[in-house]
Amino acid sequence: MSISTKLQGIFTPNLVPLDQRGEINESELRRYTDWLIDRGVHGLYPNGSTGEFTRFTAEERRRIIEIIVDQNRGRVPILAGAAEANVKETIRACEHYSDLGVRAVAIVAPFYYKLSPESVYAYFAEIGRNTPVDVTLYNIPLFASPIDVPTVQRLADNFERIVAIKDSSGDIPHMIRMIQAVRPQRPEFSFLTGWDAALMPLILIGCDGGTNATSGVVPEITRKLYDLTTAGKLDEARQVQYDLVTLFDTMIYSAEFPEGFRAAVELRGFNMGTGRQPLSPDQTTDLSLLSKTLQCLLAEQGFTDEPVGGCPVGADQIDRAEINAIVQNVLGELKRRGMA
Amino acid sequence: MSISTKLQGIFTPNLVPLDQRGEINESELRRYTDWLIDRGVHGLYPNGSTGEFTRFTAEERRRIIEIIVDQNRGRVPILAGAAEANVKETIRACEHYSDLGVRAVAIVAPFYYKLSPESVYAYFAEIGRNTPVDVTLYNIPLFASPIDVPTVQRLADNFERIVAIKDSSGDIPHMIRMIQAVRPQRPEFSFLTGWDAALMPLILIGCDGGTNATSGVVPEITRKLYDLTTAGKLDEARQVQYDLVTLFDTMIYSAEFPEGFRAAVELRGFNMGTGRQPLSPDQTTDLSLLSKTLQCLLAEQGFTDEPVGGCPVGADQIDRAEINAIVQNVLGELKRRGMA
Amino acid sequence: MSISTKLQGIFTPNLVPLDQRGEINESELRRYTDWLIDRGVHGLYPNGSTGEFTRFTAEERRRIIEIIVDQNRGRVPILAGAAEANVKETIRACEHYSDLGVRAVAIVAPFYYKLSPESVYAYFAEIGRNTPVDVTLYNIPLFASPIDVPTVQRLADNFERIVAIKDSSGDIPHMIRMIQAVRPQRPEFSFLTGWDAALMPLILIGCDGGTNATSGVVPEITRKLYDLTTAGKLDEARQVQYDLVTLFDTMIYSAEFPEGFRAAVELRGFNMGTGRQPLSPDQTTDLSLLSKTLQCLLAEQGFTDEPVGGCPVGADQIDRAEINAIVQNVLGELKRRGMA
Amino acid sequence: MSISTKLQGIFTPNLVPLDQRGEINESELRRYTDWLIDRGVHGLYPNGSTGEFTRFTAEERRRIIEIIVDQNRGRVPILAGAAEANVKETIRACEHYSDLGVRAVAIVAPFYYKLSPESVYAYFAEIGRNTPVDVTLYNIPLFASPIDVPTVQRLADNFERIVAIKDSSGDIPHMIRMIQAVRPQRPEFSFLTGWDAALMPLILIGCDGGTNATSGVVPEITRKLYDLTTAGKLDEARQVQYDLVTLFDTMIYSAEFPEGFRAAVELRGFNMGTGRQPLSPDQTTDLSLLSKTLQCLLAEQGFTDEPVGGCPVGADQIDRAEINAIVQNVLGELKRRGMA
Repeated sequence: MSISTKLQGIFTPNLVPLDQRGEINESELRRYTDWLIDRGVHGLYPNGSTGEFTRFTAEERRRIIEIIVDQNRGRVPILAGAAEANVKETIRACEHYSDLGVRAVAIVAPFYYKLSPESVYAYFAEIGRNTPVDVTLYNIPLFASPIDVPTVQRLADNFERIVAIKDSSGDIPHMIRMIQAVRPQRPEFSFLTGWDAALMPLILIGCDGGTNATSGVVPEITRKLYDLTTAGKLDEARQVQYDLVTLFDTMIYSAEFPEGFRAAVELRGFNMGTGRQPLSPDQTTDLSLLSKTLQCLLAEQGFTDEPVGGCPVGADQIDRAEINAIVQNVLGELKRRGMA
Repeated sequence: MSISTKLQGIFTPNLVPLDQRGEINESELRRYTDWLIDRGVHGLYPNGSTGEFTRFTAEERRRIIEIIVDQNRGRVPILAGAAEANVKETIRACEHYSDLGVRAVAIVAPFYYKLSPESVYAYFAEIGRNTPVDVTLYNIPLFASPIDVPTVQRLADNFERIVAIKDSSGDIPHMIRMIQAVRPQRPEFSFLTGWDAALMPLILIGCDGGTNATSGVVPEITRKLYDLTTAGKLDEARQVQYDLVTLFDTMIYSAEFPEGFRAAVELRGFNMGTGRQPLSPDQTTDLSLLSKTLQCLLAEQGFTDEPVGGCPVGADQIDRAEINAIVQNVLGELKRRGMA
Repeated sequence: MSISTKLQGIFTPNLVPLDQRGEINESELRRYTDWLIDRGVHGLYPNGSTGEFTRFTAEERRRIIEIIVDQNRGRVPILAGAAEANVKETIRACEHYSDLGVRAVAIVAPFYYKLSPESVYAYFAEIGRNTPVDVTLYNIPLFASPIDVPTVQRLADNFERIVAIKDSSGDIPHMIRMIQAVRPQRPEFSFLTGWDAALMPLILIGCDGGTNATSGVVPEITRKLYDLTTAGKLDEARQVQYDLVTLFDTMIYSAEFPEGFRAAVELRGFNMGTGRQPLSPDQTTDLSLLSKTLQCLLAEQGFTDEPVGGCPVGADQIDRAEINAIVQNVLGELKRRGMA
Repeated sequence: MSISTKLQGIFTPNLVPLDQRGEINESELRRYTDWLIDRGVHGLYPNGSTGEFTRFTAEERRRIIEIIVDQNRGRVPILAGAAEANVKETIRACEHYSDLGVRAVAIVAPFYYKLSPESVYAYFAEIGRNTPVDVTLYNIPLFASPIDVPTVQRLADNFERIVAIKDSSGDIPHMIRMIQAVRPQRPEFSFLTGWDAALMPLILIGCDGGTNATSGVVPEITRKLYDLTTAGKLDEARQVQYDLVTLFDTMIYSAEFPEGFRAAVELRGFNMGTGRQPLSPDQTTDLSLLSKTLQCLLAEQGFTDEPVGGCPVGADQIDRAEINAIVQNVLGELKRRGMA
């Protein structure tokens, strides 16, 4: 794939199915990869936050990319999460993924320690100077050191290999400021949003696409929202965006991230296994309640059958009120933890 | 004006000109009121945050409303900021402004103490039960206790007199959640945004208008952005939105709020006087530098002459870089203070 | 009282009793004033945050000071909260309270708008130049613009009339930095803490006293903690500090501030009336449950009888666990609101 | 070492010297280990935040513990940082370090994802059930999911192998609440603070010691502060605590953590090498300026010679003002990043 192809469309930050021993379930991961591609996502983004990259060992992270690249067989561009313990290890991962033929890597700013913009620049500059493969900056200020607008601009100005940013802040004016700062000099630089709940308006103000966790669950809907929005069918798009907010909120705020997404992908027919973060008995119970709600939401859209026992009549309104209550409770909880 | 008219369009949260003694400059306030109405704003919103309502005494706040209502002579709907020291005083203000014939009042959630949603509900419920005039909830979580989605929903469900919310968070998914929670039961309930930097996308996802500080400076542009967006002329709207972000950022982040707006209104030909918050000599100097930058931005749009000494050739790009640097510095500063 | 007397000891930020119409209950306020002085508080601090100064009108705030000064008849120094809508009004309040003979005023940094350190300096500098009475800076970053260390230092260096700071952050290293920055040049400058839960350690690292809300409820205990700590009886002091944390947490985190303190003062025999912030029926019920818990805590200390129905046997441990649960729940809630 | 020995005193969270290729400098690490033990620290705590555990690979983390255990030869207890990518890997590390004979492990709450208290409990419960070695909880809410008081209490109540908490919040009332919640049932449970700037007051209110980064630079002073405080020599202790705040602030706020500490250990005669996080040229310059300031501070205490060119006459006051300015600037920057 040529360096001149702009990153565009919906890249799925895929989850990783685990087997009964908690190890990577390779055959299920291959089947899931095919399923996503068949349903029209424009690309795949393994080892993202949804993919729980920090909960795998360095060896496992490499293995995940290798499986997906192999299964993909060049059908869609792969954006490989490549962040490792330090800049030298990260560059080694870039080299390895370059050899595998990925379209680009995505690298989150250093986390745990919260770095200054100057240090974030120094980190990515070192990568920009040494990477053999295109790099997407990954800005997720809730989890990692923020990459601010002047830093994005300096990196875009100085390193041709840095070709995109994935921004998960969901902040519209921030996205406008980044586009204004970078696009005049680098028209091919790509702006992707990781915040599904604002995908339509972000595309309308200039984004090139998204790396959206919902596309791992309902690739049909996320893709449809992208298509309707880029085609200017705003009334239809708005309704799909509203529905996506309900689904996204339910998955992201009703359980420890990304367990809600894991539960939903199970409902689409994949054996995802038990996540690596231990759950309490209460959390496990909550998760199976969530699963029923999700099943009703997915059944409304025609993607699953209704759960045994059925969904409430007039499920739409009733579910929404309950979901809203859950979401608001958990949004509060998340705000308390500085996450939202 | 009938209760059934939905609040819609751009309501200007006007500044208050002061005279040499620091008192309300009535004649200039009357002239400014006419000027705003002549330039097409849909309504006026005195005693908002831009209007520095907390820096006036209770008597002065009443006087401001009286002057504007009198000068308006029924031309546009008035949204009168009515928050006072406690709920009883606030209800008294509602009664007074009702007698004056305002279209509605706008009431910020209690501030200084940060209240729980339950207390915010109790406060507005007491107002909802007693107000003789329509009420707009005013949510500005940076400055005041937040009004969360379930609280908006409960208030909308229970009090017919509560007819709108002005939300200054600029958070798109939050706005979608509010609309989903309230609009089915209260289709005439109005959603206004106070965050100019996201006006276009917020209208596109369902907002009815805005109470935007930029409309007190460049009413022509804010109105144009509203018209282009509601007419579906997205490419043109997007460019106006981008320009508005630059102007808004310059005014809001380059000086203590709302001094940047005050300086810009001066450039439009009004004698705004010195603000009530004392400035240091350095701040005064910074403000006159800011004024030059603003004059170049306004001159680009044809609203003023260039400043003496002219603007940089190719001003557009050069200014933007400088502005961006300033904005980012100050954004950092504001984040430090929990404001952005 | 001479300017050379350093502010020292426990200043009670007293609540204001209200009558059945919600107006200031003058006779009860006078009785409460006497009671506090009789129980040994070193001074009084009306119109503080505990005193709900923002919920009274400007006229009421003056009336509160007048009543307390009159009732005090010079027995203890009065620190009068003097913050008004803007700097000019604040200086007028300083003049009035100076005429009344207060020892000093206390002025919170501007709130609602969050000001930069430069603006906070300019505000207090204007006051420092014009006040006829000694001024205590009041730093409460949870509610108002923060007063940072360099600002305290500049103000202390330049304005003799600024003689103290009340800091409610409870942050030990911050207090050490302030003392290091100011005390060498201004040995008589006083450092008071508003954070009861760290009173003992703050005195041990150099504070001169506190303006502590618990001293309005259990003046005997707060005073005893101060006396034990300054006398170096650390083992006894530590136990009193532990008990005070339990009581303080219960009052501050179990109800909307300062309703828990209001309920506790009722238990000491004062008719405090209903607060000005409306409560929901649920909140009112919670408050009467809290009142029982407080009564058991106060009964343990011998300050009240046990409530009708008695306290749990082995009340100490049982109560603590329940209280801890409540406190932690509400601490989370407060963190969510940026308050703790 | 018997399980019944309470963790007590100063445990040094040691830095790791690197060689010219950026690899672990084993001989220097051994020399540094001896030097620390010789200067009286009570224990060592490798793979803490100061030790940059996240910037080493899993293999390197094991190697660091192995070297230090070997060099220590049983002289002092070792607290080995054992957090790995997921709970299974972490338990494996516990097993390995147990075999090596460490006194206990220290495990930070999961980071990157911000977990709820329920999940934090589930994580440590899984460890508590399976660890063969004593565990110290490590609470550092600036970097990792917080471990709240009820969670500490539940873990202490249910798992005998969980024997201590290291808390880096520096929040006095929080420490009091933890001690009140745990000590009655688990008198041998140990409370250690990681916040050097409040070491004295935290010991005075009941802490058992600290894991303090300054003890890796000036072990003599941190140890002296501990000894003076536990001996009740408060006036002397207070002055040492003040000095330690100045030194600590300079190291922690004047450069990206832990570069300031690295620079200071260099001044004590160790070849620390270049850190793994890339620095810009400006940052490198700043670091050598910082090094001069640190050298003057250390020279004042008699630990180094003055730098070439000398220190300012009356260095004490002059340095402090400069340092204060730097500290306050950077404190602001850190607040902006949510770190302070």
